[in-house]
Amino acid sequence: MHGAGVSGLLVTHPADVRYLSGFTGSSAALAVSRRAARLFTDGRYRTQAAEEVTAAKVEIVSGPPAVAAAQWLSAQPGIENAGFDPQWTTVAELARWKAGLASKLRRRFLVPLETSLVETLRLVKDEEELGIMREAALLGSKLFDHIVGFIRPGIREVDVAAELEHQARVLGAEGMSFETIVASGERSALPHGRATGARLPRRGFLTLDFGVILKGYCSDMTRTVYLGKPKRNERSAYEAVLEAQLAGVDAVGSGVSCGAVDEAARGVLRQAGLAEAFSHSTGHGVGLEIHEPPRIGAGQTNTLHPGMVVTIEPGVYLAGQFGIRIEDMVVVTRTGGEVLTPSPKALIEL
Amino acid sequence: MHGAGVSGLLVTHPADVRYLSGFTGSSAALAVSRRAARLFTDGRYRTQAAEEVTAAKVEIVSGPPAVAAAQWLSAQPGIENAGFDPQWTTVAELARWKAGLASKLRRRFLVPLETSLVETLRLVKDEEELGIMREAALLGSKLFDHIVGFIRPGIREVDVAAELEHQARVLGAEGMSFETIVASGERSALPHGRATGARLPRRGFLTLDFGVILKGYCSDMTRTVYLGKPKRNERSAYEAVLEAQLAGVDAVGSGVSCGAVDEAARGVLRQAGLAEAFSHSTGHGVGLEIHEPPRIGAGQTNTLHPGMVVTIEPGVYLAGQFGIRIEDMVVVTRTGGEVLTPSPKALIEL
Repeated sequence: MHGAGVSGLLVTHPADVRYLSGFTGSSAALAVSRRAARLFTDGRYRTQAAEEVTAAKVEIVSGPPAVAAAQWLSAQPGIENAGFDPQWTTVAELARWKAGLASKLRRRFLVPLETSLVETLRLVKDEEELGIMREAALLGSKLFDHIVGFIRPGIREVDVAAELEHQARVLGAEGMSFETIVASGERSALPHGRATGARLPRRGFLTLDFGVILKGYCSDMTRTVYLGKPKRNERSAYEAVLEAQLAGVDAVGSGVSCGAVDEAARGVLRQAGLAEAFSHSTGHGVGLEIHEPPRIGAGQTNTLHPGMVVTIEPGVYLAGQFGIRIEDMVVVTRTGGEVLTPSPKALIEL
Repeated sequence: MHGAGVSGLLVTHPADVRYLSGFTGSSAALAVSRRAARLFTDGRYRTQAAEEVTAAKVEIVSGPPAVAAAQWLSAQPGIENAGFDPQWTTVAELARWKAGLASKLRRRFLVPLETSLVETLRLVKDEEELGIMREAALLGSKLFDHIVGFIRPGIREVDVAAELEHQARVLGAEGMSFETIVASGERSALPHGRATGARLPRRGFLTLDFGVILKGYCSDMTRTVYLGKPKRNERSAYEAVLEAQLAGVDAVGSGVSCGAVDEAARGVLRQAGLAEAFSHSTGHGVGLEIHEPPRIGAGQTNTLHPGMVVTIEPGVYLAGQFGIRIEDMVVVTRTGGEVLTPSPKALIEL
């Protein structure tokens, strides 16, 4: 806070509130001064907040929690201004917060932070967080093992998603970290093909991209399997994606730029004549949210540090033909990167 | 747009983009002039956008879609300014959009709309939308029937959630419209008690609050059942909530204020000495999003119109003891309100 030139902090993004206070409800604001922190929420969360929040006082309010939090900050002695995260504050919210302040404070009291302070803290995971994420990634791999035994031609994509999500719950997941992607045959060429009523073909690729939530933390993995016997061009495309993925994983290391990791994977696909078919970034950070910084994309100059967890997920998508993506979670270590997703990556033919 | 004083419109909220264009991807911006509309998205969605969007030209861009959309609008003849929705635009996004414009346009070209134009269109559902929502509500009730046969003391809350969500998928849901709430025993006093590893008691309330997504539209329902034989005070609390819920449903009608509907339900609980225990609003609009306007809360002066779909969901929460909530979806008709949720509401004892 000192470095950012603010003496108070107004935190409203739910994942940030959870990270700092432990509160898991959806409607809350955390006010932080140099001496104290106070969590504002509404009556629905009275019991839950009392259970979950120990490091801050809890105050139940009837209006918007963030308005109350901004007012509280403005009334604390020694607080001249309060930083907020412009990435997680809407234009309308900011107007409401300002309207709740004394008129002389409206212009300058609330300061958009250039760097999100809490997001920066969240980038590097501590041992406890890594333990949970390791467990979440392992659960993902168990689900993949299970679903491989369930897949057969003729069943619907939604049946695969249902079975996977059911098993996730049974094995202790709090939920899925995003809408499960089950994309078969030509539909595998959709990078975000949600499960539909389409039936699995006798022959073709099947992409499974899914994740679970465990103690608030997300896992994320993708495997592409083949139903039947792949044609030569399909097999070579798979090999190219796998080689790109391994190159991406291999490039992960402390002090390495995100752009260099992206280029390691992208270069392999360019070499294979598939540069155009790889239409997204190589990966993203993951943690309390399924998409967090850093972005592993072309030209990204920010560097990786030990404790960051990122996905490495190159893919190729050929409209009307097929698509392939392979994704692991990787934690940055002092000496390189450690893959958290234990599932094998050689092409599985079913 | 004419009424709002804008000649262009920049739409970025995914549900609004979907409503206007049919595009279901997560990263897109729709630019609307009086003559044309253009959808901007990134390479991941090339195939999907071509499939889904017919009423607008699609343009694939490599940078942020909304920046490209704002630039496109600023280059159209006859467009002096473009409205955007400040509820769905972050302070950081607005800064990026402005930075992408010619410097003389930065101050005035982008105008925050006082009333969200698309949200206003979405408030009133047409026959096709109501048909889907009716189907979604019916699916919810089928799931409730199914899960009642599954519930027994000793199983975990998460097992109940898993079974319910699995069955939802099997019956054709695209997903759940929010994290399924399964709160048993004392945990039923948490209005938003997500399913945990807690085991269902031999005796006590069990609150189930869940919804499905069907063709993009959300359903939402809550029932509270009893395991074993309720005590007299538990039964009378249930009767009070049910009476409040029926009074709320009964108050729904064209031209009625949202505050009056809230008061109809709240008054019953006040009469029963449970005003304090009813710690949230009576309901909310529902449609492409699980929470939409209008809010059915105390003092809300906006009025209901035919075609609006709202939830009516009063509850009481007694920390350390129990909680009860009953929720239906109700569509406003010309002559009153029609309940879309066919499940019975008399207390079920299991």
